[in-house]
Amino acid sequence: MVAEVKEFVRPEDIEAIMAGLGTRARAAARVLANVPGDRKNAALSAMAGALRARTDEILDANARDMRAAEARGTAGSFLDRLKLDPTRIEAMAKGVEDIAALADPVGSVIAEWDRPNGLHIERVRTPLGVIGVIFESRPNVTADAGALCLKAGNAVILRPGSESALSSRAIHACLVEGLEAAGLPGDAIQIVPTTDRAAVGEMLKGLDGNIDVIVPRGGRSLVERVQTEARVPVFAHLEGICHVYVHAPADLEMAKAIVVNAKMRRTGICGAAETLLIDRELVETHLKPIVGALIDSGCEVRGDDTAQAVDDRVITATDADFGKEFLDAIIAVKVVDGLDAAIAHIGTYGSSHTEAIVTDDQAAADTFMARVDSAILLHNASTQFADGGEFGMGAEIGIATGRMHARGPVGVEQLTSFKYRVRGTGQTRP
Amino acid sequence: MVAEVKEFVRPEDIEAIMAGLGTRARAAARVLANVPGDRKNAALSAMAGALRARTDEILDANARDMRAAEARGTAGSFLDRLKLDPTRIEAMAKGVEDIAALADPVGSVIAEWDRPNGLHIERVRTPLGVIGVIFESRPNVTADAGALCLKAGNAVILRPGSESALSSRAIHACLVEGLEAAGLPGDAIQIVPTTDRAAVGEMLKGLDGNIDVIVPRGGRSLVERVQTEARVPVFAHLEGICHVYVHAPADLEMAKAIVVNAKMRRTGICGAAETLLIDRELVETHLKPIVGALIDSGCEVRGDDTAQAVDDRVITATDADFGKEFLDAIIAVKVVDGLDAAIAHIGTYGSSHTEAIVTDDQAAADTFMARVDSAILLHNASTQFADGGEFGMGAEIGIATGRMHARGPVGVEQLTSFKYRVRGTGQTRP
Repeated sequence: MVAEVKEFVRPEDIEAIMAGLGTRARAAARVLANVPGDRKNAALSAMAGALRARTDEILDANARDMRAAEARGTAGSFLDRLKLDPTRIEAMAKGVEDIAALADPVGSVIAEWDRPNGLHIERVRTPLGVIGVIFESRPNVTADAGALCLKAGNAVILRPGSESALSSRAIHACLVEGLEAAGLPGDAIQIVPTTDRAAVGEMLKGLDGNIDVIVPRGGRSLVERVQTEARVPVFAHLEGICHVYVHAPADLEMAKAIVVNAKMRRTGICGAAETLLIDRELVETHLKPIVGALIDSGCEVRGDDTAQAVDDRVITATDADFGKEFLDAIIAVKVVDGLDAAIAHIGTYGSSHTEAIVTDDQAAADTFMARVDSAILLHNASTQFADGGEFGMGAEIGIATGRMHARGPVGVEQLTSFKYRVRGTGQTRP
Repeated sequence: MVAEVKEFVRPEDIEAIMAGLGTRARAAARVLANVPGDRKNAALSAMAGALRARTDEILDANARDMRAAEARGTAGSFLDRLKLDPTRIEAMAKGVEDIAALADPVGSVIAEWDRPNGLHIERVRTPLGVIGVIFESRPNVTADAGALCLKAGNAVILRPGSESALSSRAIHACLVEGLEAAGLPGDAIQIVPTTDRAAVGEMLKGLDGNIDVIVPRGGRSLVERVQTEARVPVFAHLEGICHVYVHAPADLEMAKAIVVNAKMRRTGICGAAETLLIDRELVETHLKPIVGALIDSGCEVRGDDTAQAVDDRVITATDADFGKEFLDAIIAVKVVDGLDAAIAHIGTYGSSHTEAIVTDDQAAADTFMARVDSAILLHNASTQFADGGEFGMGAEIGIATGRMHARGPVGVEQLTSFKYRVRGTGQTRP
């Protein structure tokens, strides 16, 4: 039985509760740093088993979250993200097993070399420490983030949105069951026991040095608050204003397929394209069929005069449509005067997340990928591949657009640090 | 002729001056990110040439800094760090040339792999952006830091201590001459034009997002201020409380040589040993000769009863002597009951910098290096090897003990970020 959400907590209690979570997380992290991979995998397997065994309990908690959300008149898209069903719980369990199947990053040698004096130097992966994850409606983040952090040898403190608190706590109980079944400390994965927003503030202050990095998962306002207030490093992206640039010469069918997929496969994810840039010399041949394909697939196209001239279903774009994350079936279209203009446009309006170039000109593609300062650059592929799973990382805790430590999909490797191991035979420094 | 230090600047002027430095640094960083390696190397060679050609000018500026410092009654060790002579300037020029000789990290492929759908993914090094370096007395940091940041494609804002401001400005003029000789923006390496401490505060706030990381170089109080106040990431170490642990069985001659070198080669550097731990079972055989060798080399030994029993020149250690960075010819000695006790002692008193184990027991060494959470662990080698040059990195901007992004010696590679380059043949995501 999942405990009721404790709604009224005194500020000094929150501070004490959160400080306790921090201290216990650090202690658990010290243990985890030296646990062999098979113990962590045993815990992950047991977690998957517990998620399956306790599906009814999770669904019951979720039903209560859903009823409360509906009673508040919450939007349908939010309810869809919140809702669990047996298929989604099975996917969660399978996701945890997939993470168990990944190679253990901890202890792996990233680089090694010999020095002329005979010293052998190795750079070896270590855990980062304690990760704080602050998320909103999707209860499955509980399992994904908990499993990923454990795999990388980190302790984690999870703070779900108040709307998904009961669902997240039910899932969390399964994770702790898995940890304990493998003889690992239950404190390796903790969940904030109050929905009071002051708890988030405490996490952002870093719990007295007991949180090493914060990962926010959710909408723009959450990420913005975290980036502004956090006194510890943050792995995040504020927006995914992704561009597809069609550069001459480009194969028309490939361009059409990539543009439609980049925009329309799923419009609500951060790797969805928001702006199409196309070379002026392709206006006669490529613009009309690409715009037509977008509109035929249900997309609203907002374009300049040139785009409107090729298809009268095109709506007038305002300057505000460029650099806007629609997260919907809407795209802004701009005709540009070649590669430099496209790179300049992305520099002005982009969010350093993901951009694609479609072209048969290899040199232009190389220039584009060298000069555009985004986490992910693609040549002749859809921006929707901006995803840790699609990159072969197994899973991701998010996508980062900052330049420090992690950039692009944040998987188990990005949740590690490193240290140096130096082996000698009695060397002293002259 | 080097401009006089402007001592009285209005706060609003400082804010504007610093904001201007930030904007120009960001603009220069954008240019540098796409400059080929040979252009950067041409600039570095020209810098070395300018340092040699303008040696008299630098010495003149340094003489004025020295006179002012002497007039203030500054300590001798400080004066020694401040003082330049033709040999030190030649070493600086040679250091810049050594950095030119390193491989260009920017654009190098760190990892690459193929996906089942045919996508080829590369993780490629990019510059970090803009580095802020805040340092104290050593004017040579101007050249070292400027050259390292340029090599990694970064712009840098240098803030020397007020005592070395004239020397640093004279060196800085040579760096700008080198940049401009190679057709690179002079703003790639800027120096704060005021000694007002408010300028440091502005840097720590990040200059409106125009500083990506701060590197403090100096004493504990500087590093502490930077770590406390900085709103941007910091690469630093507060202290180097390095341990040498002699574990049975250990070769006596090797242990003696390593302990004496780790402590006494140079006592003022962060990789100097501060504490010797030795197994109780080595008290009869190893403790006396090691302590004797330390004392004979001019070291004050502070030890527990057991250590005092083997040599009556040993002074009584207090608990405050453990975990203390003496930065002097003083060492604390403790007898421990084996590996676990040594690891526990380091966990309590260490500073996560550098620790060495001396032993013939390979398994014990492996356990030590796995379980001690420090940036650098050495087996049968001196802690004084904790240095970017000794690691083969060519040069370092400092040593970091944090877990984010950089750890251990911070060389050109650690001053880079990365991005992903994905090459396809028209792939769309199912």
